[in-house]
Amino acid sequence: MKRRSLMKAAALSAALGLASGAAFAQDAERKIIGVSIPSATHGFMGGLNWHAQDTIKRLGEAYPNLEFVLSTAGDAAKQVNDIEDMMATRNIDGLVVLPFESEPLTAPVKAVKDAGKFVTVVDRGLSQEGIEDLYVAGDNTAFGRVAGEYFRDNLEAGAKVVVLRGIPTTLDNERVEAFQAALEGSDIEILDMQHGNWNRDDAFTVMQDYLSKYPQIDAVWAADDDMAIGVLEAISAANRQDEMWVIGGAGMKEIVRRIMEGDPQLPVNVTYPPALISSAIEMTALNFVSNAPMTGRFIIGSQLITPENAEQFHYPDSPF
Amino acid sequence: MKRRSLMKAAALSAALGLASGAAFAQDAERKIIGVSIPSATHGFMGGLNWHAQDTIKRLGEAYPNLEFVLSTAGDAAKQVNDIEDMMATRNIDGLVVLPFESEPLTAPVKAVKDAGKFVTVVDRGLSQEGIEDLYVAGDNTAFGRVAGEYFRDNLEAGAKVVVLRGIPTTLDNERVEAFQAALEGSDIEILDMQHGNWNRDDAFTVMQDYLSKYPQIDAVWAADDDMAIGVLEAISAANRQDEMWVIGGAGMKEIVRRIMEGDPQLPVNVTYPPALISSAIEMTALNFVSNAPMTGRFIIGSQLITPENAEQFHYPDSPF
Repeated sequence: MKRRSLMKAAALSAALGLASGAAFAQDAERKIIGVSIPSATHGFMGGLNWHAQDTIKRLGEAYPNLEFVLSTAGDAAKQVNDIEDMMATRNIDGLVVLPFESEPLTAPVKAVKDAGKFVTVVDRGLSQEGIEDLYVAGDNTAFGRVAGEYFRDNLEAGAKVVVLRGIPTTLDNERVEAFQAALEGSDIEILDMQHGNWNRDDAFTVMQDYLSKYPQIDAVWAADDDMAIGVLEAISAANRQDEMWVIGGAGMKEIVRRIMEGDPQLPVNVTYPPALISSAIEMTALNFVSNAPMTGRFIIGSQLITPENAEQFHYPDSPF
Repeated sequence: MKRRSLMKAAALSAALGLASGAAFAQDAERKIIGVSIPSATHGFMGGLNWHAQDTIKRLGEAYPNLEFVLSTAGDAAKQVNDIEDMMATRNIDGLVVLPFESEPLTAPVKAVKDAGKFVTVVDRGLSQEGIEDLYVAGDNTAFGRVAGEYFRDNLEAGAKVVVLRGIPTTLDNERVEAFQAALEGSDIEILDMQHGNWNRDDAFTVMQDYLSKYPQIDAVWAADDDMAIGVLEAISAANRQDEMWVIGGAGMKEIVRRIMEGDPQLPVNVTYPPALISSAIEMTALNFVSNAPMTGRFIIGSQLITPENAEQFHYPDSPF
């Protein structure tokens, strides 16, 4: 198994044309960066996988002395294996890891750090603080606040809204609390907040329930683009698409395209970019090719996507 | 005056070989990044100026389509002028600014942002939140905590220490509070904390006073390398160099060299890197050459410099 996953990584490396750099650079300057991420099991991770490959390709061309080993894992055990392989057989100089789960990845990532490698942790913290050199993540508070501010500024007094929550997590709490805080003092009423679990089908069911319960709904905070798709289907099925608009989140390609086209049902979106993996890989590369300090915490802001700026958030080649 | 400062920027640009890239890249892809920083009036700013030039040189070579306009200012009014020049005559696409002072720079930097440019603010916030796309700064809490932890772990119970504070500012408070918090619960006594104002001569005077007042001093937190130099002079003058060690901060070249050589008076140092300007310029460049999101807050960690790792923090060509 170990051997096989390694071969896959090497094959991918070759397919991306990453190994060619070795010929240009002196051995002393050659640096190998491992990138370990979850597989493309759903929309957001599909986008994240695409952006990781896109960035590795760009960096391989810009810096021939950098070599990358990319591995994707469908579960935590496979990811632990991948990282141990990277250390044992590729002797990586740096590791970029988006942990499948925090707990089982903490010890293996700590072992990489203890071996003197540069470690970048992305999106989800490890169970122990202070292991990584660089932490790169989205801003969940801003994600909720930016959405809430749009509701506050674009609904009339007395407007009624419903909210779909994600999987019950700290991350979801932070987002929802910031959304509610942004509405405080306004005359906008939140009718209901149920968990759609960042899942299209669950969101469809929750929204069906909302539509049967509430005769007046002016806007929906779906809080995630997969949930937004489910919500839009339920609204269409109830034939109430002229009554309310829907704000998702994360910048899914189809949603961004509809914003660009001025769809009145989808006026804006809030970023939580799958391309955060690109920021993490680029900054890890800078640690090796520049004198710029890259140790610390980079929290990527959540931005409002509007018809005016949507094009810069639209990646036609990405699956997400 | 405007014309003159512009000519100086252009001359510097030429001297660094930055303009040459324009010939390689298509006009459509060419991006101009303005960098506005305080002059090299003291050690830390000298280092910062050196790192800014070093990074602009590296990026000009790595990305021929990027062009840089660097200007340095001895006061806030000159810096406002510089930024207005960059907009009026160079039509910059992005701005990296380390504000001389927050208040007078806020409106001019906001004007750059309102014109649709990418704005990176470094080290000191503006008077109004949310203007910049990217904020890059050091971590003052970690700066105090890392030093405090070294004192806690390397002094015996009953040890007595003195502290030199910087110019009275929020920044200095954050550092000192974190230092005190790290010592809480230990048996280490802080005898005194006076302001040496990040100044060599003031620190000499404060330390002279400490030395005459306190018969037992086991260690000094000078909290800044300029202050550490003044403190070491006072200790030498009192001939008490065998009694105590001194921890400065920021990673001054001479101090780092002495750590590399194993000087018992200077066992370690804590980083607050003048190269943070390099992180800011590199990340702003990534906004133009990559798909990686670069909007957000990057807080650079403070690291402990030890004899083992000192070499990686030693820049022999930098003036600081």
